[in-house]
Amino acid sequence: VARERVLGVLGGMGPAATADFYTKLVKATPALQDQDHIPVVVVGDPRIADRSRALESGTESVVLAGMLRSLHHLERVGVDAIAIPCNTAHCWLRDLTSATDIPFISLIEASVREARTAHPGASTALILGTRATVSSRLYDSELRRVGFGIVPVTDEQQDAVDAVISNVKAGTFAAAESLFESLAKSCWNQADVVLLACTELPLAAAAAAQFQPKIVDTTAALVNACIAWAKQ
Amino acid sequence: VARERVLGVLGGMGPAATADFYTKLVKATPALQDQDHIPVVVVGDPRIADRSRALESGTESVVLAGMLRSLHHLERVGVDAIAIPCNTAHCWLRDLTSATDIPFISLIEASVREARTAHPGASTALILGTRATVSSRLYDSELRRVGFGIVPVTDEQQDAVDAVISNVKAGTFAAAESLFESLAKSCWNQADVVLLACTELPLAAAAAAQFQPKIVDTTAALVNACIAWAKQ
Repeated sequence: VARERVLGVLGGMGPAATADFYTKLVKATPALQDQDHIPVVVVGDPRIADRSRALESGTESVVLAGMLRSLHHLERVGVDAIAIPCNTAHCWLRDLTSATDIPFISLIEASVREARTAHPGASTALILGTRATVSSRLYDSELRRVGFGIVPVTDEQQDAVDAVISNVKAGTFAAAESLFESLAKSCWNQADVVLLACTELPLAAAAAAQFQPKIVDTTAALVNACIAWAKQ
Repeated sequence: VARERVLGVLGGMGPAATADFYTKLVKATPALQDQDHIPVVVVGDPRIADRSRALESGTESVVLAGMLRSLHHLERVGVDAIAIPCNTAHCWLRDLTSATDIPFISLIEASVREARTAHPGASTALILGTRATVSSRLYDSELRRVGFGIVPVTDEQQDAVDAVISNVKAGTFAAAESLFESLAKSCWNQADVVLLACTELPLAAAAAAQFQPKIVDTTAALVNACIAWAKQ
């Protein structure tokens, strides 16, 4: 990889997901020694207001202010591209892009690309994400463009997704894993591909080996896009 | 925890160890939601020259220059304390301390405290670390001060430690785990407590459950010290 350029990570949303991103980035980078790895600066500010609640309550500007603070920290250090290991945060991607000259590596684009290349024959996709990610239709046009039909989750399934995410954020991983397994059993036959479109979800899904084949892990997809960027 | 203050992490030495530190920090922080976590800025610069080789070849200033660059990034963002999840890097702690007003949370002090409080009856300690950490006697005076006698590793054991570390840095974790297990079998009876005095070693030791009771994980000790700092 090109070691001259530094990857910025606008993180902390949530902290476990950012740590998972960093861990997966290190594991996926071809490296024989420390010096072969990608230089990173992670601004992990968990004080940024809850993204889903802000979109529900119309307080988006509070979230944006928090993210802009992290963005300015990354600008001050001097990074060459920025990744955000949080799906819902991509609702603000246009605002962030217009606030800086540093390019963003979109988790949404990376995940749709991964869904398409890893599952060439698939024609339907189920999106498991926060209520805000789903209702903002963050993925819909990109997925349709590459030939996926979008299968909606039921209200009950959305409640279960929210519960899994809350448990990961609270650090209660055993509960998160068991809730994820029940959810997966209920929704797995609905589509060819299941997008874990919230970066907390892979942390609850890792133990469930039987569900892996259909999964698109959006954290891993972002990692792959970052490594591709570093190799350019 | 006090959310106003930001923890700086001078990391990348190596990247897997820094990711492990971040993961353990998130897991060990009492939190029900993102906003309960400690704000962190991680400068993970794996380009910093190899610490052990520099100490062997008398090129310490090259390492210091790399660490100072990361330190200045942390200063520019504005952090309130700095942790370095690398044992060998603490050979340069005095130089770093004199270059900034930001306090450091010493991994060495944290680990010796952990060794003492977690093993109140123990009287001997074996230090598994890089050749540089061992020959610099980073731990010796602190350990003696709290009543530990230091048991030396043999040359052959030191070679095995180096091999485990290299394998973690190269991402070959299965080899690292198997090498660690052989090493542990050969040295585990030599002392009451075994310090994993290189932050790569816990990544090779996690699978070896039977060896856990004697272990002081220096990454986890640093995490605990950082959480205590955040609670102040």
